[in-house]
Amino acid sequence: MSVHPLTNVPDVALVYPITVRWADMDAYAHVNNVNYLRFFEEARVYAFKDWFGQDRDLIDEGMLVVSQAIDYLLPMGFAYAPCRVAVWCSDVGAASFELGYAVAGAQGDDTVYARGRVTLVSYDLQTERPRRLGAAEREALSAVLGTGPRLRSDKRAAAPRAVAG
Amino acid sequence: MSVHPLTNVPDVALVYPITVRWADMDAYAHVNNVNYLRFFEEARVYAFKDWFGQDRDLIDEGMLVVSQAIDYLLPMGFAYAPCRVAVWCSDVGAASFELGYAVAGAQGDDTVYARGRVTLVSYDLQTERPRRLGAAEREALSAVLGTGPRLRSDKRAAAPRAVAG
Amino acid sequence: MSVHPLTNVPDVALVYPITVRWADMDAYAHVNNVNYLRFFEEARVYAFKDWFGQDRDLIDEGMLVVSQAIDYLLPMGFAYAPCRVAVWCSDVGAASFELGYAVAGAQGDDTVYARGRVTLVSYDLQTERPRRLGAAEREALSAVLGTGPRLRSDKRAAAPRAVAG
Amino acid sequence: MSVHPLTNVPDVALVYPITVRWADMDAYAHVNNVNYLRFFEEARVYAFKDWFGQDRDLIDEGMLVVSQAIDYLLPMGFAYAPCRVAVWCSDVGAASFELGYAVAGAQGDDTVYARGRVTLVSYDLQTERPRRLGAAEREALSAVLGTGPRLRSDKRAAAPRAVAG
Repeated sequence: MSVHPLTNVPDVALVYPITVRWADMDAYAHVNNVNYLRFFEEARVYAFKDWFGQDRDLIDEGMLVVSQAIDYLLPMGFAYAPCRVAVWCSDVGAASFELGYAVAGAQGDDTVYARGRVTLVSYDLQTERPRRLGAAEREALSAVLGTGPRLRSDKRAAAPRAVAG
Repeated sequence: MSVHPLTNVPDVALVYPITVRWADMDAYAHVNNVNYLRFFEEARVYAFKDWFGQDRDLIDEGMLVVSQAIDYLLPMGFAYAPCRVAVWCSDVGAASFELGYAVAGAQGDDTVYARGRVTLVSYDLQTERPRRLGAAEREALSAVLGTGPRLRSDKRAAAPRAVAG
Repeated sequence: MSVHPLTNVPDVALVYPITVRWADMDAYAHVNNVNYLRFFEEARVYAFKDWFGQDRDLIDEGMLVVSQAIDYLLPMGFAYAPCRVAVWCSDVGAASFELGYAVAGAQGDDTVYARGRVTLVSYDLQTERPRRLGAAEREALSAVLGTGPRLRSDKRAAAPRAVAG
Repeated sequence: MSVHPLTNVPDVALVYPITVRWADMDAYAHVNNVNYLRFFEEARVYAFKDWFGQDRDLIDEGMLVVSQAIDYLLPMGFAYAPCRVAVWCSDVGAASFELGYAVAGAQGDDTVYARGRVTLVSYDLQTERPRRLGAAEREALSAVLGTGPRLRSDKRAAAPRAVAG
């Protein structure tokens, strides 16, 4: 299902055509910022199938999103052709992994509209606790491992400050 | 419109009751992770009205979301009573500002389900360029200024690593 | 939870304040036509609780929507205050019932923006087959029974024509 | 863009592959009933482009949905392949027209999950009043004219009863 690869994303990234619905636009007639996370979800559903070679019931229900971060670069309008979402693995831990994302326009429009990172934990549905990633899962994720996109919030790295929470 | 204040958020935060729709649940019968960003948006729409004392046409259309980050702490189920979203200003710049968020359960359920930060830029709709925040806007934001929530991705501060983009 | 009753709906109707989200607007800056059905769903979730005095798990999962019809009278804009959705039972059968709906503006705006009818069947989740309404369900529905709203499509009654299916 | 034609819809119908999003499922793990109307909208956006050979700005903004009716025949689950939505014109008036719809499964699954009818009025955006359909619009609609789907509510035709509203 992968389409023409995007520039500036790791070679291992899969690129999915993700349909933008007319209703994804908000009152400003641009794709609403929240809906980009929906595009991430859609690309993830397809990527899990391609990476893990298993059905949603076996994998998806055993992965929980624990954090997301996204930068918006330019407003995206509606287009009849699907936008393209690149997704790859940007980090793997014992019981969690991070996905990197880039959202480009429809075929022919290589503008990058957004970039993001999503962290998921593998989860044991029986015990309702995090579980270690299985060997097959780790292998599949390692095969699509690349450096994650830099985001605006990373500037915090250079100048940490007191935060509450 | 503010409801009982949440603990662990700055005193200046406003807390809005935000309706969770039955349809906000996904196939796992929990509120879908993407919809929390919708709750952020809803709280922001109300907060802008309360902070800036102006109509959406004057303010909302002059603010663009440029980045968002969210941590999910616990899955939230549907409830007949609205959840509570605390929102405050966690940083102010010349032409941008950051909002801090915490999502708690309905009145009586002080569980914090998610925390987040959203950065917006003030925007001149005529020139289609960022604009400096006005004096009234800066004053309003300064009045609700508090430290932002710490997020999982902040660990990057301690251990920066090469990222591509 | 019921608010000031609307005119032109049966006295037995319950009227729920239903939050209109900013994102319910589409690119025309009016509430998107599809989202009115979401308001119907929301009102139904609350009404089932009030009528049947039971939790969603006991009732909601045993009712399936089998048809919907809606007329749009005027475009509705965003408002900070919730719109009001009147819902009542407009017909009861052995294993199904019809709900009547009217959508009015926020308190003080008695404009009727839409009217509709939704038919549901009671469903046995174990056997995956329609089931007869229980005595308590019939009684609850009979207590809120009133004539349903007339819709544009009812004109077909006067001039039936050949249709395929 | 049209895919393998569905049976039981007029030959003139166009059939569009419409992506079902994972998030279109609700807590029952079936596609939520409201989202079928979203599929109707999506198919209409594409059909208007194909029928009228014009851009959304010229046509879409001049058409308002004034009524919708839908029957649900079977619950639809998530599938990686798009469902197929057939759309055609089932009636043309001076300033309005009706579309007929059928929703079938992905390629290979000819199950019809829903049928519907949507009425739109042509609208003059300058005067904010209904306008007569133009000759080109009437011609385009006449070319895809077929009998509309029979719906459950049509039974009212045989047994009209007093309704309020």
